[in-house]
Amino acid sequence: MNIQMIEAAAARLAGHARQTPLLSSPFLDEIAGRRVLLKAECLQHTGSFKYRGARSAVSALAPEIREKGVIAFSSGNHAQGVALAAREFGVPAVIIMPSDAPRLKIENTRALGAEVVLYDRATEDRDKIGARLSDARALTLIKPFDEPQVIAGQGTTGLEIAQQAKAAGVTKADVLIPCGGGGLTSGTALALASKAPDLRVRPCEPEEFDDATRSLVSGHIETNTRKAGSICDAIITPRPGDLTFPIMAQLCGPGIVVSEDECLRAMAAAFTRLKVVIEPGGAVALAAALFHPQQINGDAVICVASGGNVDSPMFITALEKYGQPAA
Amino acid sequence: MNIQMIEAAAARLAGHARQTPLLSSPFLDEIAGRRVLLKAECLQHTGSFKYRGARSAVSALAPEIREKGVIAFSSGNHAQGVALAAREFGVPAVIIMPSDAPRLKIENTRALGAEVVLYDRATEDRDKIGARLSDARALTLIKPFDEPQVIAGQGTTGLEIAQQAKAAGVTKADVLIPCGGGGLTSGTALALASKAPDLRVRPCEPEEFDDATRSLVSGHIETNTRKAGSICDAIITPRPGDLTFPIMAQLCGPGIVVSEDECLRAMAAAFTRLKVVIEPGGAVALAAALFHPQQINGDAVICVASGGNVDSPMFITALEKYGQPAA
Repeated sequence: MNIQMIEAAAARLAGHARQTPLLSSPFLDEIAGRRVLLKAECLQHTGSFKYRGARSAVSALAPEIREKGVIAFSSGNHAQGVALAAREFGVPAVIIMPSDAPRLKIENTRALGAEVVLYDRATEDRDKIGARLSDARALTLIKPFDEPQVIAGQGTTGLEIAQQAKAAGVTKADVLIPCGGGGLTSGTALALASKAPDLRVRPCEPEEFDDATRSLVSGHIETNTRKAGSICDAIITPRPGDLTFPIMAQLCGPGIVVSEDECLRAMAAAFTRLKVVIEPGGAVALAAALFHPQQINGDAVICVASGGNVDSPMFITALEKYGQPAA
Repeated sequence: MNIQMIEAAAARLAGHARQTPLLSSPFLDEIAGRRVLLKAECLQHTGSFKYRGARSAVSALAPEIREKGVIAFSSGNHAQGVALAAREFGVPAVIIMPSDAPRLKIENTRALGAEVVLYDRATEDRDKIGARLSDARALTLIKPFDEPQVIAGQGTTGLEIAQQAKAAGVTKADVLIPCGGGGLTSGTALALASKAPDLRVRPCEPEEFDDATRSLVSGHIETNTRKAGSICDAIITPRPGDLTFPIMAQLCGPGIVVSEDECLRAMAAAFTRLKVVIEPGGAVALAAALFHPQQINGDAVICVASGGNVDSPMFITALEKYGQPAA
């Protein structure tokens, strides 16, 4: 992995991925006690940054391989990214999703033209289902994070942050990133190490799914005990990746762990103050910026809102508990 | 009014107003039967386009006039725009607001440092209150729409649309704009007439508050019978302005009228598909694009989401009625 791969991915994504805005509000600055800049990847195509990595990986395949089709495992955001990228190239996509994934994510993946295969997390082995399908149809697996071209695609977020932060007058800050398997975290860390070395990436995670934070402390890959049951469905990957963790270990600052309730509060704050919709897992970095200020360094903090694919009932819960003007 | 005034306003706004993104989703295209491009002015500072006109007007004042302070009448979005612009220049702002304005708007205006004076729409004369205050303190009135520098500021939205639509490959389309007094509508129409003459502005309004639509039909200024009681609080101005209407009559296509329920559906669609928060009055143009396709011309339509300052309970209503995946 190197910066050239990220720049090559950016070239392949040009005119396809959206340059998402860096948003701010004096009201959030006040809560956090410092400037808060939010990179709104929830406004990316398919509602999350995952489209970047998916399009990067699908566009890097040899045409004769790509045309046979792609396959992915995902609870939803990577699924939609791969489905859209495959559709843009006119090739088939098969997505294997847990049957308890948010309905919106399942419906969208189907509506983007992918063949969705549901499995029961408790009783079925998704890898076996995937192997059977990909063998039979010569589909190429697009991994969700532990794949160089996916990491390179996610890293384009970091290229934009370097540029936009500089334009906003911020050259030294912590950059908080929602961390599942570490694709966005490691890709962005690589991009910033090259383009804006005083912007330091720090992974953010929900309580009980803090594998990356613990791995950074111990220096080797740690695994979560809990496997499911979080509102932060997008980022509850059991452990950092074999490719992503060494990058994180080399480049990232300490992780920050937030509660689910802080995610809901951050979602409500983003609704009220920035007018963007963030899903619970996508809100961990903003939650860290707003509610764990003592763990953060400097006069400004940058956080990534990694996705916005949340079902209405969950969003209503956030607003009912923490929506303005009551909050 | 001319394009030079809009370009001068753009120069004064550079580095202050945010260039808001032009968003899209294949799911919205499918509902509308054509490409839909949404100019997300809900992501503007203070959550609405009104900051553009307010900053334009306040920045155009002579310093010795400006330093005495400014005053405005507004149910909320212009209020916040003027409050922020005044704060940026370090001058006092007095905002006269109806006591039934959305709480979020009143609270934000106060939090932006303005002195908020509430009045009862039914029993008090806001103009008398305003005259008394501005006489006593030599405050300059910043009108919400019928003021050249305000129109020029709102017109900067049109400069951005011309550029962004071209980048998206759209050079001929209807441009749907939520219309209250006509500041954004006339300013954008002026900008587009100069920069992208095949992009034609059309005002959008809620039922029973369709003064601009009827005025364009009759050729002279018509007034609404109803004065209040709409969820679209941002755009229920009783009549088009004396400055804005002649511009609209010269440059705009026919108005489009939507129901309040269509606004709620459009808000839910924007939540689900674009991850942005739009207030009811800000959603009339998207509602027209999605639910009145037979009144629109061409393969693509551009609509402006003019604001996102909605209280949680109203947003919850939209999601409960029309939120995905049920919708």
